[in-house]
Amino acid sequence: MTLRVDLNCDLGESFGPWRMGADEEVMSCITSANIACGAHAGDPGTMRRTVELARRHGVAVGAHPGLPDLAGFGRRAMALSPEDAHDLVLFQLGALDGFVRAAGLVLQHVKPHGALYNQAASDDALAGALVEATHAFRSDLIFVGLPGSAMERAAAHAGLRFAAEVFADRAYRADGTLAPRAIAGAVISDPGEAAARAVAMVREGRVRAVTGEWVTLRADTICIHGDNPAAVVMAAAVRRALESAGIVVAALASGS
Amino acid sequence: MTLRVDLNCDLGESFGPWRMGADEEVMSCITSANIACGAHAGDPGTMRRTVELARRHGVAVGAHPGLPDLAGFGRRAMALSPEDAHDLVLFQLGALDGFVRAAGLVLQHVKPHGALYNQAASDDALAGALVEATHAFRSDLIFVGLPGSAMERAAAHAGLRFAAEVFADRAYRADGTLAPRAIAGAVISDPGEAAARAVAMVREGRVRAVTGEWVTLRADTICIHGDNPAAVVMAAAVRRALESAGIVVAALASGS
Amino acid sequence: MTLRVDLNCDLGESFGPWRMGADEEVMSCITSANIACGAHAGDPGTMRRTVELARRHGVAVGAHPGLPDLAGFGRRAMALSPEDAHDLVLFQLGALDGFVRAAGLVLQHVKPHGALYNQAASDDALAGALVEATHAFRSDLIFVGLPGSAMERAAAHAGLRFAAEVFADRAYRADGTLAPRAIAGAVISDPGEAAARAVAMVREGRVRAVTGEWVTLRADTICIHGDNPAAVVMAAAVRRALESAGIVVAALASGS
Amino acid sequence: MTLRVDLNCDLGESFGPWRMGADEEVMSCITSANIACGAHAGDPGTMRRTVELARRHGVAVGAHPGLPDLAGFGRRAMALSPEDAHDLVLFQLGALDGFVRAAGLVLQHVKPHGALYNQAASDDALAGALVEATHAFRSDLIFVGLPGSAMERAAAHAGLRFAAEVFADRAYRADGTLAPRAIAGAVISDPGEAAARAVAMVREGRVRAVTGEWVTLRADTICIHGDNPAAVVMAAAVRRALESAGIVVAALASGS
Repeated sequence: MTLRVDLNCDLGESFGPWRMGADEEVMSCITSANIACGAHAGDPGTMRRTVELARRHGVAVGAHPGLPDLAGFGRRAMALSPEDAHDLVLFQLGALDGFVRAAGLVLQHVKPHGALYNQAASDDALAGALVEATHAFRSDLIFVGLPGSAMERAAAHAGLRFAAEVFADRAYRADGTLAPRAIAGAVISDPGEAAARAVAMVREGRVRAVTGEWVTLRADTICIHGDNPAAVVMAAAVRRALESAGIVVAALASGS
Repeated sequence: MTLRVDLNCDLGESFGPWRMGADEEVMSCITSANIACGAHAGDPGTMRRTVELARRHGVAVGAHPGLPDLAGFGRRAMALSPEDAHDLVLFQLGALDGFVRAAGLVLQHVKPHGALYNQAASDDALAGALVEATHAFRSDLIFVGLPGSAMERAAAHAGLRFAAEVFADRAYRADGTLAPRAIAGAVISDPGEAAARAVAMVREGRVRAVTGEWVTLRADTICIHGDNPAAVVMAAAVRRALESAGIVVAALASGS
Repeated sequence: MTLRVDLNCDLGESFGPWRMGADEEVMSCITSANIACGAHAGDPGTMRRTVELARRHGVAVGAHPGLPDLAGFGRRAMALSPEDAHDLVLFQLGALDGFVRAAGLVLQHVKPHGALYNQAASDDALAGALVEATHAFRSDLIFVGLPGSAMERAAAHAGLRFAAEVFADRAYRADGTLAPRAIAGAVISDPGEAAARAVAMVREGRVRAVTGEWVTLRADTICIHGDNPAAVVMAAAVRRALESAGIVVAALASGS
Repeated sequence: MTLRVDLNCDLGESFGPWRMGADEEVMSCITSANIACGAHAGDPGTMRRTVELARRHGVAVGAHPGLPDLAGFGRRAMALSPEDAHDLVLFQLGALDGFVRAAGLVLQHVKPHGALYNQAASDDALAGALVEATHAFRSDLIFVGLPGSAMERAAAHAGLRFAAEVFADRAYRADGTLAPRAIAGAVISDPGEAAARAVAMVREGRVRAVTGEWVTLRADTICIHGDNPAAVVMAAAVRRALESAGIVVAALASGS
């Protein structure tokens, strides 16, 4: 059996006159782009240009909805009601989809951003609201999230396809959650080590926790960072290592 | 031949905790709703609720995109580039369409709001950008605007269906533009008079200007205001008068 | 000894074209106005007009800073760092003070709004940040908050004058916190009952909890609501009852 | 007589997670900082940090109010009423002043940003509103603007001190306005040439227009750009050349 995996990256996170991320460079390494939808980052012009950039590179496009907190970049948890969260995500999916349709593409997936992702990982009501909004928009969209989290449960409950996301450059705890960045060794900065972890996670379906235990996890898509030149170097290293190991690197929808 | 006309109203202009408009009451008088899309007014929850309200009343739904100026309610002209205007409108169409699709409806039309409407009436480049965004979103959408304006020219040029909008409660100048509100007699507050003008505009395709001349104008849709109880009384009077005169009052798309 | 108390109300909570609150009517009942500063509500024009209205009525002016969440009216808790909260409050105090100074007045107090108030009641680090920002702005400002809360502790620690706020129209729990609105009897809608409670709280320094116990609380200022006609009727009733009981109703600063 | 001039630069134009400008580097070249106030750029944290940076470098602090258009960076003209413009500027002056006072400094000047500057250069009502807001805030503030413009006239009329701003790296037209950037030669990129122009403008009070005529202009302050490394090199060259020519480079207020 051929092993396959998707490489995703958060893109289109500029706003107005402000640039963020090496979008051009990272596009050639990835297979799925999570594009900001104007709430935590992104403005209409940035959204259009990022969708067009993805199209030129043959990269699948997904929505990356976030909390309505531009100054905080969607990283400060907010006590949204499930109803508010539902409407906020549906708004953002639609807004991005206008540009996707105008570019002749079809939206592939949805991956929540920042604090919304973290809150939805453990809050069943919130996760349910995000999944419901996604399903209401198009029932064949793929929901990307943390394996074993409330997001996976909500997707299963709604009959929405779920893609399990892993991180090549982050250390895991024994319970399958990410080690906080503040902990020594939580962030892996060596491209070779990250690449080796990526290959192992796809091949073996497991990763060694910071405390030594093996953690089982399914890896449908690997999150790549693209916010600085070193990140792009690592992204390229991860992709090369996967392909050298005979793993097919392809967008999520292409494997359905 | 049966005469027919659409009645449209701007709705969904509440924001967060703030209410605006008698949306519930006016829905029973109209056939097309122009729903704010979050830029000049409207938030995700308001958008969803207004779309659902339109669905319950069998009213056709259109997008009402505006300038990104919440504090100014989209009424302060802005020097947008055509590219910025295009992206801004495409964003708003998509955002509203998410709620429209989730409600099982199909977006019928686009009508720019406030200063964007006024600027696009005389600015060919801007009108072209709005029409292009509409066409890129869905080429069978109907663009609602001022007859004889840059909006009508741009729609014709792009092959987009155009609906000519008239105002039953506003006086016209000899050149077919509206008399400014500051001028005495510019706003007609008597429901009977407005209703009679509505009937005459549909039947005869003309209206008497403030200076006495006859102005020829096509009336595909009549704009109704719904921001206060008196406006709703007038809306009901206009509808009754049209129907009593044997004119079919129906949504734009139903007549295509 | 003469008893005295301040009556405060949240005002200036309109935004752009949207109106909220019966500001004109309630101004004649109160002695201190908490004016929104543009984050959860209020815009520059509303701020100027509300300050001028307070000046005409001889009402003392305070800042009412909130979370940067206009759509949520500052009622959705946000995980702000103490540093972010400090800067956010300092920004809002300054912004309002421009209008206060231009009107020839002197800012009297600061009272956090909504979720910021609630979060600061129990979060010492957050309360410390709000108090520090207030002190940095002007060390003789008065900080209004819940008696016995983290806000009172932080003010005491910083040497900032603290005014204890009570609610005439809300039921209390035995621990001195407010009974949640969802609980039956949590909101007192009878003006006579609210007025009697107000007089008793000032005279006796205590209130009967929903569960029957007596709760001791200092009442420096009573919060009055002004968001609807019934609220204004209650505000007037509370003021009348206090004055009839020989209690001096006067702004906080006048009693220093 | 000793010649003197101020060097000013727009700073604090980052927003949330997005960085703009080489603020650290340019601070050592200038004598007055124009700090963004949260409308076109800047957030509370950026404002505090930029004020503190200016304090550490002994640079005088001024407010740089802009249009409420973050996505457009305040560069898209807006049809504000004079009243709206007045309130908007007063809000921004106050907001910045909170940080200035907390840092133990005194606000020195006000310089409008972007489209607001350009609109106020030729619109007497708008210029009057900006000057009136500045005067209402503190009547001894200095208003920085284009010499010979509506801003200078409004300041003279209100009795507000005016500082004439010139540009070392921009070509002038015969009427004393800047040549549009689109015109060849409009932007001077050679540091030596810009430095020589700066010295000549201060010494001779005139500059050669693109069409060859001499344009008379008073130079109280020279605008320096700091948004990229090359700009910082130019800023340093201009300062060195001025000092080598025996011109005192000092903040505006120090010369009063």
